[in-house]
Amino acid sequence: PCLTSRWTVMANFKGHALPGSFFLLFGLWWSVKYPLRYFNEKVNKKSHRNHGYQRLDVIEGAAKIIFAVIGMLAEQFVPDGPHLYLYSGEERTWVKLMNWQHTTMYLFYGLSGVVDVLTYSPLKVPLGLDRLMLSVAVFVEGFLFYYHVLHRPMLDKHIHSLLLIAVFGGAFGILLEVFLRDNIVLELFRASLAILQGTWFWQIGFVLFPPWGGPAWNEEDHDNIMFVTMCFFWHYAAALLIMIANYMLTFWYSRNFLKKINKSKTGISYIHSSSWA
Amino acid sequence: PCLTSRWTVMANFKGHALPGSFFLLFGLWWSVKYPLRYFNEKVNKKSHRNHGYQRLDVIEGAAKIIFAVIGMLAEQFVPDGPHLYLYSGEERTWVKLMNWQHTTMYLFYGLSGVVDVLTYSPLKVPLGLDRLMLSVAVFVEGFLFYYHVLHRPMLDKHIHSLLLIAVFGGAFGILLEVFLRDNIVLELFRASLAILQGTWFWQIGFVLFPPWGGPAWNEEDHDNIMFVTMCFFWHYAAALLIMIANYMLTFWYSRNFLKKINKSKTGISYIHSSSWA
Amino acid sequence: PCLTSRWTVMANFKGHALPGSFFLLFGLWWSVKYPLRYFNEKVNKKSHRNHGYQRLDVIEGAAKIIFAVIGMLAEQFVPDGPHLYLYSGEERTWVKLMNWQHTTMYLFYGLSGVVDVLTYSPLKVPLGLDRLMLSVAVFVEGFLFYYHVLHRPMLDKHIHSLLLIAVFGGAFGILLEVFLRDNIVLELFRASLAILQGTWFWQIGFVLFPPWGGPAWNEEDHDNIMFVTMCFFWHYAAALLIMIANYMLTFWYSRNFLKKINKSKTGISYIHSSSWA
Amino acid sequence: PCLTSRWTVMANFKGHALPGSFFLLFGLWWSVKYPLRYFNEKVNKKSHRNHGYQRLDVIEGAAKIIFAVIGMLAEQFVPDGPHLYLYSGEERTWVKLMNWQHTTMYLFYGLSGVVDVLTYSPLKVPLGLDRLMLSVAVFVEGFLFYYHVLHRPMLDKHIHSLLLIAVFGGAFGILLEVFLRDNIVLELFRASLAILQGTWFWQIGFVLFPPWGGPAWNEEDHDNIMFVTMCFFWHYAAALLIMIANYMLTFWYSRNFLKKINKSKTGISYIHSSSWA
Repeated sequence: PCLTSRWTVMANFKGHALPGSFFLLFGLWWSVKYPLRYFNEKVNKKSHRNHGYQRLDVIEGAAKIIFAVIGMLAEQFVPDGPHLYLYSGEERTWVKLMNWQHTTMYLFYGLSGVVDVLTYSPLKVPLGLDRLMLSVAVFVEGFLFYYHVLHRPMLDKHIHSLLLIAVFGGAFGILLEVFLRDNIVLELFRASLAILQGTWFWQIGFVLFPPWGGPAWNEEDHDNIMFVTMCFFWHYAAALLIMIANYMLTFWYSRNFLKKINKSKTGISYIHSSSWA
Repeated sequence: PCLTSRWTVMANFKGHALPGSFFLLFGLWWSVKYPLRYFNEKVNKKSHRNHGYQRLDVIEGAAKIIFAVIGMLAEQFVPDGPHLYLYSGEERTWVKLMNWQHTTMYLFYGLSGVVDVLTYSPLKVPLGLDRLMLSVAVFVEGFLFYYHVLHRPMLDKHIHSLLLIAVFGGAFGILLEVFLRDNIVLELFRASLAILQGTWFWQIGFVLFPPWGGPAWNEEDHDNIMFVTMCFFWHYAAALLIMIANYMLTFWYSRNFLKKINKSKTGISYIHSSSWA
Repeated sequence: PCLTSRWTVMANFKGHALPGSFFLLFGLWWSVKYPLRYFNEKVNKKSHRNHGYQRLDVIEGAAKIIFAVIGMLAEQFVPDGPHLYLYSGEERTWVKLMNWQHTTMYLFYGLSGVVDVLTYSPLKVPLGLDRLMLSVAVFVEGFLFYYHVLHRPMLDKHIHSLLLIAVFGGAFGILLEVFLRDNIVLELFRASLAILQGTWFWQIGFVLFPPWGGPAWNEEDHDNIMFVTMCFFWHYAAALLIMIANYMLTFWYSRNFLKKINKSKTGISYIHSSSWA
Repeated sequence: PCLTSRWTVMANFKGHALPGSFFLLFGLWWSVKYPLRYFNEKVNKKSHRNHGYQRLDVIEGAAKIIFAVIGMLAEQFVPDGPHLYLYSGEERTWVKLMNWQHTTMYLFYGLSGVVDVLTYSPLKVPLGLDRLMLSVAVFVEGFLFYYHVLHRPMLDKHIHSLLLIAVFGGAFGILLEVFLRDNIVLELFRASLAILQGTWFWQIGFVLFPPWGGPAWNEEDHDNIMFVTMCFFWHYAAALLIMIANYMLTFWYSRNFLKKINKSKTGISYIHSSSWA
């Protein structure tokens, strides 16, 4: 597509950078939160786990809602956004459907946040619904992308279809969490794929809408396709290294600090934890 | 396809409105029934649950059989239906295969109803077969649609292929219910997808066969495709909001009425339930 | 394809009728065996189940081996078969690859029979391997068919691709049996798909190679495709009705005969069983 | 592609023979290791299993790392390799992307080895992460192959796409092992698919890059495609026969030697084991 306007390029770049940052933030947060809870459980023998982490889940849900609202407002009210107009009666055409699609994507993440918050309300929402709703939100994102890219140039199509691996992989993993709740392996998998999505959104922005100008990539060069494929997996390798680093930091932190706290609380739990270290 | 006759349009519209209404009815019913049973179990500690709900399951099975028979008769005996003729010897052609396909779809839902009823008969049908049969019926619907749309105009194809997401998603969820019976999360998921199917059948009717005339949609406009994709997920968002509303109404109802009934029945169960509220 | 020779038509017809009969035989046998075991268990409280049914499993395995050997010999040594020649050095071409493919299919069912027999040998093969091997055999059949039909006329392709639904559905169900062994629902599902495969193989034979001559079907007529799709699901509906009939016959038989045998054996088991009827 | 240089042919042949040997080695090793552990457990009643086999797992992880490093170095520093150059600024092209792709594949197997080793370090990595990481490595291999073969001649495409059956089948099986750890059926399945991958890599080398010259295969002959499909499944049949042979050898070995060792250790365990034989 011929992007004549400098402004459109920046808008599109930011349209990828914003969700990328959201995913990255959540991924990094999960890569610290879940190991921390895991070590804490090992020390405390699963006795008084729920209180602190339930509060965290509610805050996470609220953050999702806030991010989703920011995303929706940004997509609607940027200068060349649809400003909530869907159909132009004069021109008999739909208005800025791309922005509406992104709005739809944010909407489902917002709904997922709502279910997260309701889960810890007095409504006694069945456990697992929050995971199912998150999985649905990720599936919706995946389907929207799938239909979104059907009629695009080759490189554009390919770079988005690689994202689908992360999206559907993540959606499937979260679906398993409905039935295997609090499974640390699945939670770390989710975190790694969220980081991957985050960095890949940024990468898409840089490849398709280079923010500092410069020549665009040749969209039909087969070698570019091959490189982009590899590059995607290098992103994942990087995400895995970040996960390992965060895991080790958390391990070191929980060994040195959490245990001291527990020691001062109860002598008995200290005896158990010493056999663990 | 050039639909010259006003009658054909109405027939096709009704052909989508009828199954749409059936799915909507079942979806809404499930969105009330399962939360109600869930709250009831919480109060009653799963002790005397089965009696009332087993009877409901038999009635549901009977309703499925009746709906399926209505659907089959409607498809066969509408004025331009096949009237049970399958092959025309004179013209050496098949007769009204579209109606026969819809008949086949209803047939499997009818069989599912039969297995539902047999499950609570003295035949002691193994638990889970009813869910498997329902899953098979939904899969059959999905495969029929899949082959049905292969050679249609783009918009027609797309609008039906979106339905396949709801159909195969539902079939997969019900398959899980074979092994995870009475799982409230899966049951609510089933309810939400049934509502989605119901409203989407109506939407298909309105888009492809506008009942009040008016210009037909441009079937090859890519923007229409994009809008329809989004529209599908808005339907699902609406279905989820209906689910949440029904859940809350049921919660309020069961809190105020069910508990009083239980209180009058046994003092002991009241003590438990008060700790739950 | 122009089938000039009457002989080739018969050969091809028989090539579909033979495996069809094998599948049908196994499907019908399973539709009686599993309900019988299920009722027997209900009466006997799972106490002395394994002895009789283990012997049956060994016999089944042996039957599989025999059928597979018959199938392989038939494919190789029919008058226009390859007679174990694979490559013709003179003509520099492969010899009768179709027959070799069918031989391969039978080979894996034979291997599945071998593992069945070994499971009850003193080798102590881990339970579940027999199911895995059967699942692999069905998957291999599916993949062979999948690649087999890629370059055929439309009707031929379609009629075989419908078979893939039964094949991959069955392979997936048997895969689940690795982990959920002796699950009556999965076993009945397997039986129903085996019957479907059996009757559909016969149907393919009649459609593509009409044994009593007559005009061949128009392979490019879209209405034929639509009819064949429906017809496939009618076969499944018929298979389900056969399953229900066999289930009821078995129920009636086990109620009247099995219980009397148990009664004469032990008075205690009779008391339990009477509460079951 | 016209391979004019004799050297390129040998390089490509070796590029398939090297990973083929790695997979074959691991597959054969697993086909001995897991039955051995299984028999050992049967004798020892699962009491002191972990010690010896944990050490083996660490050694396996180290072997994976070493193999991955060898593979990466070989791909980078063969005479016509990229020597770590990724982009040629002068020619404005990517350098030897094929070798870089293979390097990426080895990288993930290396990461899997790292997680294997970390699992038994004092870091207390959650059990299951090692299997997940191996599954991810196999999935990455699969996706790389999938995109790798999109624009190749028919036979090349087909012969690699058959490999995908083994790759994705294996990845899926290993994914199940995350949740069903130490399941002997899944472990034997993994071993059989590793052997299949190994021999098939060699086969690809012989077909596409005949090392002793000779005429290349006709890449567009449909009969070659059909033969190759069958051939793939014959490889699997051979892999299964190797598995059965290794199983029997292990059985015989563990019966004659392991039991004597146990007998000399404890008299009690002998009593149990004698009832097992």
